[in-house]
Amino acid sequence: MPEHTPVELPAARPSMMAWDAWGSQENRRPLTAHTRSVLRSILGITAQDEPPKSEHDVRLRPSTLTGDSIQALATIVGVDHVTTDDAVRILHLGGKSTIDLLRRRNDEVHQAPDAVVFPAGRTDIESLLAFCSDNSIAVVPFGGGTSVVGGLDPVREWFDDVIAVSLRRMRGMTDLDTVSRTATFQAGVTGPEAEEMLGRHGLTLGHFPQSFQYATIGGFAATRSSGQASAGYGRFDDMVQALTVVTPIGTVEPGRTAPASAAGPDIRQVFLGSEGTLGIVTDVTVRARELPETTTYRAWRFDDFAAGAEAFRVLAAVSSRPTVMRLSDETETGINAAMSESSVVDASHGGCLAITTFDGSAEDVAARMSVAESILVHGGAHPVDEAAARAWEHGRFDGPYLRDALLDVGALAETLETATNWSRLTHVRSAVTSALTESLRGAGTPPVVLCHISHVYETGASLYFTVVCAAAADPITQWRDAKAAATDAMIAAGATLTHHHAVGRDHRDWMVQEIGPVGAAVLRAIKSAVDPAGVLNPGKLIP
Amino acid sequence: MPEHTPVELPAARPSMMAWDAWGSQENRRPLTAHTRSVLRSILGITAQDEPPKSEHDVRLRPSTLTGDSIQALATIVGVDHVTTDDAVRILHLGGKSTIDLLRRRNDEVHQAPDAVVFPAGRTDIESLLAFCSDNSIAVVPFGGGTSVVGGLDPVREWFDDVIAVSLRRMRGMTDLDTVSRTATFQAGVTGPEAEEMLGRHGLTLGHFPQSFQYATIGGFAATRSSGQASAGYGRFDDMVQALTVVTPIGTVEPGRTAPASAAGPDIRQVFLGSEGTLGIVTDVTVRARELPETTTYRAWRFDDFAAGAEAFRVLAAVSSRPTVMRLSDETETGINAAMSESSVVDASHGGCLAITTFDGSAEDVAARMSVAESILVHGGAHPVDEAAARAWEHGRFDGPYLRDALLDVGALAETLETATNWSRLTHVRSAVTSALTESLRGAGTPPVVLCHISHVYETGASLYFTVVCAAAADPITQWRDAKAAATDAMIAAGATLTHHHAVGRDHRDWMVQEIGPVGAAVLRAIKSAVDPAGVLNPGKLIP
Repeated sequence: MPEHTPVELPAARPSMMAWDAWGSQENRRPLTAHTRSVLRSILGITAQDEPPKSEHDVRLRPSTLTGDSIQALATIVGVDHVTTDDAVRILHLGGKSTIDLLRRRNDEVHQAPDAVVFPAGRTDIESLLAFCSDNSIAVVPFGGGTSVVGGLDPVREWFDDVIAVSLRRMRGMTDLDTVSRTATFQAGVTGPEAEEMLGRHGLTLGHFPQSFQYATIGGFAATRSSGQASAGYGRFDDMVQALTVVTPIGTVEPGRTAPASAAGPDIRQVFLGSEGTLGIVTDVTVRARELPETTTYRAWRFDDFAAGAEAFRVLAAVSSRPTVMRLSDETETGINAAMSESSVVDASHGGCLAITTFDGSAEDVAARMSVAESILVHGGAHPVDEAAARAWEHGRFDGPYLRDALLDVGALAETLETATNWSRLTHVRSAVTSALTESLRGAGTPPVVLCHISHVYETGASLYFTVVCAAAADPITQWRDAKAAATDAMIAAGATLTHHHAVGRDHRDWMVQEIGPVGAAVLRAIKSAVDPAGVLNPGKLIP
Repeated sequence: MPEHTPVELPAARPSMMAWDAWGSQENRRPLTAHTRSVLRSILGITAQDEPPKSEHDVRLRPSTLTGDSIQALATIVGVDHVTTDDAVRILHLGGKSTIDLLRRRNDEVHQAPDAVVFPAGRTDIESLLAFCSDNSIAVVPFGGGTSVVGGLDPVREWFDDVIAVSLRRMRGMTDLDTVSRTATFQAGVTGPEAEEMLGRHGLTLGHFPQSFQYATIGGFAATRSSGQASAGYGRFDDMVQALTVVTPIGTVEPGRTAPASAAGPDIRQVFLGSEGTLGIVTDVTVRARELPETTTYRAWRFDDFAAGAEAFRVLAAVSSRPTVMRLSDETETGINAAMSESSVVDASHGGCLAITTFDGSAEDVAARMSVAESILVHGGAHPVDEAAARAWEHGRFDGPYLRDALLDVGALAETLETATNWSRLTHVRSAVTSALTESLRGAGTPPVVLCHISHVYETGASLYFTVVCAAAADPITQWRDAKAAATDAMIAAGATLTHHHAVGRDHRDWMVQEIGPVGAAVLRAIKSAVDPAGVLNPGKLIP
């Protein structure tokens, strides 16, 4: 199989995320006085900003990698592309869950990969996996570093050494087929870079998860990411026509011949969502679409969540449904209105805010808006100022930055998500909200629990929960308990463990409940076959 | 896991297909005088009908199953539901490829399963697989018997005995969730039975492959079937939300919690397309849709196949595209016109016939037709009498019956299919047509090769080939050679081995080329894990 070499590259690369926060240092923004007053009034949180810890005060576990191993890695990727420097290792400590961020505020000695390696492409990765398999070195594939489920933790298990393999140098588009409307990206291409390269050709991927600014194409594939415009553009796994995955026993390129096939089980779907445990995704061929001629916005108010969910259920079955469909529950609607200093939604009306956007040609958008309006109004929606939809889009990537600022003042803030069939949706929402509320109330820190629908299917939808409360003395245990209660409640209510955050280390204990013992046996068998030494991302995903 | 028990059953069951032909005896229809004259003028075929062989003259390999084993099987399924009678075994000799049908015309001693077993449900199947695994008895799961790739051959490999497990008694709908719009069917439900049960509730599955009349829900899942209305309703694997599969190590029910998940590799996609080699599908939960208010028909003529394919490429990217999209090449258009005694398409115009149909509400259909018309006319389509589209729909399941009649007069007739990206589509069509033509011309039997597009995707489409020529002295070798040449040409041209016919025994030799050695290792690892004794459908699919 030939190496895929870039035919196009993006412009200058943005910086990596800070080691201890979402985004880069220049994105840090303290809470406004207004938000502080809301926090005080609702949750009794009055703390002042905790100053960030200096990188120089952070202690990392010293690298155990021998000089011989480092020399061998340098022979593979080049001496400039392997490092044991703390300044680089600290950027690869793991992902960006609230637990991750809380731990980085602790005074512990941080687990860190023993080295960070930057391969140039597939051939380098083939050599790296051969070397690490032969020498019992664990490998954590590292894209944008945006995991919120512990998927990037440098877990050693029974290995003495662990390295992070950063895909950061693999940032090109290696193929563009404008007839078939497919583009092939190297795994390290970020969301904005993919849009930049496609945009030059009048194309878009349409994949906008909250992690968009930093997350990578390889990561989207490895975690079954889903973007905020999934109602119109589909989940990332829907967009993938083919992918190249390097495993320790060889490289596999499922899907390269056709958009669909009946030639047995879909091997693509074995590696999509494999989270670096079965191989390293090096290239992904995605379906592209024409850049929309226009995007229009509509916002709506429903009297309650059940009414909104029912209208969304009907609208989700329409082939020309909106591009974005979001429905906030009463609490999320109220809190968002209270948090906004210039709210376009009058919180005094109560109810639930719904947002719809429509990408397409002017004619297509007009037709789809007319259908959607008819269904939503029939379902009890009242139109409100479309500025609410524009405001949502403007702030669509802001949540994680706000979380940093909340942690700074002694709040605990985190999100979690699930999906289920329409017939169980309102029950699942209640069950998860109750589980979170009871757990955190039991810890002496009653929370606010916000929920929204943001991904719809003909047969069901996702539920995304945001939890904010005062941090307890041990906020890590406080959150682990609440999260476990919420996850147990999801499983008991017949919902999936995760709709788009993936499994990583944090959800692994529930995987047997999710996929059953036969499903677990299938995953373990594939793992043993493609990674016989077990070096790939130990401790993640596979139960 | 509880047994799924039917909540609804279909009306009286139609008969099984005849042992030696597609469909049942009463469907046999000899060629018309007009078709005979076309065959004579184009291919020089002048033979008279060969009378069908009497079942009583057929010799089956005697059953080797011991009385003890039969007794044990009877204990599991009941004494009335296991048989070694030749009259039943002859109906389970295999599928209905042309090779199968030619062999049934031979005087050989036919391989046959040693017994046919009819389980009542999942519990019976769990016991059957435990017994067969412990006693080294190979198991061929048998649905509608419509395989055209040798998927049902009673292959023994290293086992002394082989049984067919017919899903014929498992014919109920076990759940209907009208809120989530999902229905759960037992595996033995046929296409018409599923539509009958859904239709009572104003719903449809929209899955109409050519095998629709006999094929089963379990078979659709096990082979990744795709129906003629896939442009509107999707492939069968798109429709499956969940399935229950009994394996020798236990039962697995992937997908039961949500329409989509990020909880690791998609286990559904491991068992979809597994063709009975990894387990027996017992229940399938599918997405249902509202029965369309109306269906409208439009037919078009393009000057040539390339122009039609280009227009279809543009139309396939429209979210509200037609429900059915078919484009015949010049040869298929011409032959179909010549074969029709009251052709609605004047063959003297030449060119290529395209058919579109639109399911939906009157308003939705009108809007979509307008968009489609604009794209097609811009792409060079000339509207022709919509009767051509209605005539296609009227005869949509007739092809295999015609094949029987052609075989009766000494013609060789068979179909094969593939899919590829739009950018390779016309090249793949030429390459496969050439390979078939050269192979059969070399055998002294120059063929006509018809081709059409019948399944479209944003990034590519399927190609379906029909081949007719005079049968040589050894028509089985004649066809095997031609088929191998065509398959080699597909692989060389970058197309998939099969778009919707599956792999079975006939395509297995190409599977390593299709999925690569790592893909093959993945399949073998899963097989060893879930079927350690290797009893499930030996000799099929897995290379």
